[in-house]
Amino acid sequence: MNVLPVTGLPEIREGDDLAALVVERVDLVDGDVLVIAQKAVSKSEGRVVRLDELEPSARALELAGDEDPRRTEAILREAVEVVRVRPPLLIVQTRHGFICASAGVDASNAPEPGMLVLLPLDPDASAARIRERVHELTRARVGVIVSDSFGRPFRMGTTDVAIGAAGVRVLQDLRGTRDRIGHELRSTQIALADELAAAAQLVMGKTDGIPVALVRGLDVAGDGNARELVIPPERDLFR
Amino acid sequence: MNVLPVTGLPEIREGDDLAALVVERVDLVDGDVLVIAQKAVSKSEGRVVRLDELEPSARALELAGDEDPRRTEAILREAVEVVRVRPPLLIVQTRHGFICASAGVDASNAPEPGMLVLLPLDPDASAARIRERVHELTRARVGVIVSDSFGRPFRMGTTDVAIGAAGVRVLQDLRGTRDRIGHELRSTQIALADELAAAAQLVMGKTDGIPVALVRGLDVAGDGNARELVIPPERDLFR
Repeated sequence: MNVLPVTGLPEIREGDDLAALVVERVDLVDGDVLVIAQKAVSKSEGRVVRLDELEPSARALELAGDEDPRRTEAILREAVEVVRVRPPLLIVQTRHGFICASAGVDASNAPEPGMLVLLPLDPDASAARIRERVHELTRARVGVIVSDSFGRPFRMGTTDVAIGAAGVRVLQDLRGTRDRIGHELRSTQIALADELAAAAQLVMGKTDGIPVALVRGLDVAGDGNARELVIPPERDLFR
Repeated sequence: MNVLPVTGLPEIREGDDLAALVVERVDLVDGDVLVIAQKAVSKSEGRVVRLDELEPSARALELAGDEDPRRTEAILREAVEVVRVRPPLLIVQTRHGFICASAGVDASNAPEPGMLVLLPLDPDASAARIRERVHELTRARVGVIVSDSFGRPFRMGTTDVAIGAAGVRVLQDLRGTRDRIGHELRSTQIALADELAAAAQLVMGKTDGIPVALVRGLDVAGDGNARELVIPPERDLFR
């Protein structure tokens, strides 16, 4: 497996054709997987908001602590449920079902100061659009993952995970297969798309502005989507 | 970044010199990272137990559901705290501080039927020993990660994470650095070692017996250890 940063991309702006910008810089072949940072996808889709357009609600004022309550307002608007609060930190469930800090709302790498970047409205659809556009431009059938950095319970630090996917196997289901001594693996599903996102993060960096990586040499073509990665709460023994 | 499976390794047995088995099959250079599946490390260290040596306690009988209570007994012996129970599933905290299903106790890929493989007693020490032995044999200064597949709250599927590490930067601390528009990243730490483990899993597979992968081309040398990845409960807003 090779994981290569796609370098030389310009700062992404609303309306940019991400697929075109990538294929100008790298030759894609069938089976390649593009991992694209959520922030680039969101910016190309205009999923940004200006702090000075936000009027904080009473709840936002209450939960903001000593932070800007307009940022808290943006988070609350993106959340369907607030899962944990320690002002100004909020862990929420997003419209997509993901549970993460700040609903993925982030000021870093925003187009300009005073702006916040929001998650794509439908990151699976974003991935599918980019995949189709790559095919249109190059005839290559690639996988696309939209990635974001999530914290997680019990463990320090963030790892990148898939919040959108198209053209890739997202979960590898090993239930019913047997190991070398004939023992049946009963409960194993591997979150391939999250591992691909994590691998890509290692070459993307966080501050050096490389929002796309190419993963080559794995057989992970499929038709999964990132909604498969959301556990129904009643099945989540860890929760 | 290149991630390569180390193929042709024999079935690992107690007393095997893992470092020697690896360096016979791949030329290592300074800065390489070896990711080694926990099961191979545990087996080389004799961290296995026979089911027929285990006498289930009353608690094991109660929590085993319709599973073999001797397996539950093995899990309870490895746990310092039981975090969640839905018989026969147990989420526990291990002696190392990790929170995971079944304390990492697993029958799959055991040396023979009727045996369970346990986590290494001190996986950071295991990683350090393998790293030193690689240096002794080749003069190469490599990083070593001991990996295992963990489930996680909120998301389907397992991803491989680091349970032991030596010679690598485990957490990349970006606090205080600035993005391209000058916005300070205040709370970002990246769990590099977990992302390395996840990347390696993609080439290792679960049933095809490739317990070691080589990650080359990243600058992640350091002196971290996997205990850094355990969040103190009082700091864990997700919990």
